[in-house]
Amino acid sequence: VTRYSAKTEELPSIKDIQTACVRIRPFLRRTIILRSRTLDSITNSRLHFKCENFQTSGSFKARGAHNAVFALSNEQAQQGVVTHSSGNHGAALALAARRRGITAQIVVPQNSVTSKVDNIRRYGGKVIFCSPTLANRKATAERAVRETGGHFIHSYDNSAVIAGQGTAAMELLLDEQQLDVIIVPVGGGGLLAGTALAIKSLKPTVAVFGAEPQMVDDAFRSLRDGTLVPQTNLQTVADALRTSLSIRTLTLMKKYVDEILLVSEESILGAMCLIWSILKIVVEPSSAVPLAAVLCNAASSRFAGKHIGIILTGGNVDVHHLAKHTDH
Amino acid sequence: VTRYSAKTEELPSIKDIQTACVRIRPFLRRTIILRSRTLDSITNSRLHFKCENFQTSGSFKARGAHNAVFALSNEQAQQGVVTHSSGNHGAALALAARRRGITAQIVVPQNSVTSKVDNIRRYGGKVIFCSPTLANRKATAERAVRETGGHFIHSYDNSAVIAGQGTAAMELLLDEQQLDVIIVPVGGGGLLAGTALAIKSLKPTVAVFGAEPQMVDDAFRSLRDGTLVPQTNLQTVADALRTSLSIRTLTLMKKYVDEILLVSEESILGAMCLIWSILKIVVEPSSAVPLAAVLCNAASSRFAGKHIGIILTGGNVDVHHLAKHTDH
Repeated sequence: VTRYSAKTEELPSIKDIQTACVRIRPFLRRTIILRSRTLDSITNSRLHFKCENFQTSGSFKARGAHNAVFALSNEQAQQGVVTHSSGNHGAALALAARRRGITAQIVVPQNSVTSKVDNIRRYGGKVIFCSPTLANRKATAERAVRETGGHFIHSYDNSAVIAGQGTAAMELLLDEQQLDVIIVPVGGGGLLAGTALAIKSLKPTVAVFGAEPQMVDDAFRSLRDGTLVPQTNLQTVADALRTSLSIRTLTLMKKYVDEILLVSEESILGAMCLIWSILKIVVEPSSAVPLAAVLCNAASSRFAGKHIGIILTGGNVDVHHLAKHTDH
Repeated sequence: VTRYSAKTEELPSIKDIQTACVRIRPFLRRTIILRSRTLDSITNSRLHFKCENFQTSGSFKARGAHNAVFALSNEQAQQGVVTHSSGNHGAALALAARRRGITAQIVVPQNSVTSKVDNIRRYGGKVIFCSPTLANRKATAERAVRETGGHFIHSYDNSAVIAGQGTAAMELLLDEQQLDVIIVPVGGGGLLAGTALAIKSLKPTVAVFGAEPQMVDDAFRSLRDGTLVPQTNLQTVADALRTSLSIRTLTLMKKYVDEILLVSEESILGAMCLIWSILKIVVEPSSAVPLAAVLCNAASSRFAGKHIGIILTGGNVDVHHLAKHTDH
């Protein structure tokens, strides 16, 4: 028996999401929901943006990480936690571990963005670099688990993480009870699985869509074929969505998700520009994928007049890189 | 007698700011105030950010424009309004005029940023292009006034505009009564004059500072010498601060402002990056000038532990230009 392998039969229930809500409340923000007359008019719908870019650590990943870390028994927690992540999950796990007073070892590919590595360190995480292949990330994390006895917490293939991510949709539904549709980005499927479980358990008439870049359409194909299609292409601007599903997230998605909507790279950048320029908030490209999907359907009647909830997943962009270009 | 020349003796009073608060309330947002433990820790102070980037039309300029437009008598208003502006005042005036049901003619230098011109048009303003010198802007606006009988509303050399801008500081003081210091950017001085008038009338123990790019230090020199020093250099990334003071704004500043703090171009971009990356909101470079001033003093005891109010003036950045650079 290894601590590392995921038991696929362990699926979270709506009860787990409700427990997560209570467990993470002391640590996280109840993020605001923004509306915009201009964006409603452009999309011919009624948009409700749940701003997880304002969440502690800069993304919704704080929800799953805090739920997983604080769900551990004292015995499980005492040797700390381990994960591999080049992005938001690493920072979120480091922060959750610090708050529990335990160590976090984060395996990070050598080619990761400096600002994301800085974020992990800022929250007290111990960074372990590895060469940038998935096999290497896994092997390095397994070694850290073996050597330290730390508890491995996968960024999405983990029931407590999925339940934690589901709390964002639960808050959104409680705050905006007239929702007809909810759309979230899909990468590994943790957020989408948690969202779908929350929504279909609480209000099954609400349609649940995943939004995915066409360039990395493995979730679309996995759901269509009913079997896990791994992601091989990494060429999307939505860097947080370059991962494959797991059996666990796919199983939940097959049960609860209505459809995956695909969008072009251009439409993602266009949607991100609209969010930055009209809502005046900083979101990362992955966050713009659901709005891109709404925009693609603006001319049809599909979403006409509908109340659409969108989870803006995070705001961790390398702005220092961007700032060089502000002086026109 | 021309409608165009400013009567320097007409100075707003605190009563005018209070009237403005009531007058503009139906049209504008009571913007939120953001705080950040990280920024407090970096600056060794307690920062309160008043988010005018979320204001209608994307900047605080909506306050002065709405106050000036709705202060007009029906007779004054019937031929519409005129101004020259390459930026936020033009868009704000166009919006205020549309809401009053009158026309707005906005004289705009040919070399203005497309997104700002688009903003003016989006709000129904009539754009009149001119060659990009101040003399030409004035002459073109004077001609529009002569030809149409429109009422000229200067972007800062106007008592109703100054009183309107003062409402932001009044709201900030009401929401954060423990303020020790308030810092706002200074360009033409409309916001600084209105802020200083509001603060020193309501709570004179609060220190009022203007923050100005060293590259365009005309406000610093004007206040030091007690006489209007025109701005000739236009080379600052804080594009909204490239204007000279007027006698009217200088007179109020001499009476109420404690000091002008100067900051480098690098510190402005650094401060803007911090706001984008930590607060996760989009602000234009000019908005970052006060935080740059606090950061320059972080090592000294000047602001240590102080409650500092900062008005984040606007969020109108050309994000389409920026978005090209997000893919790293």
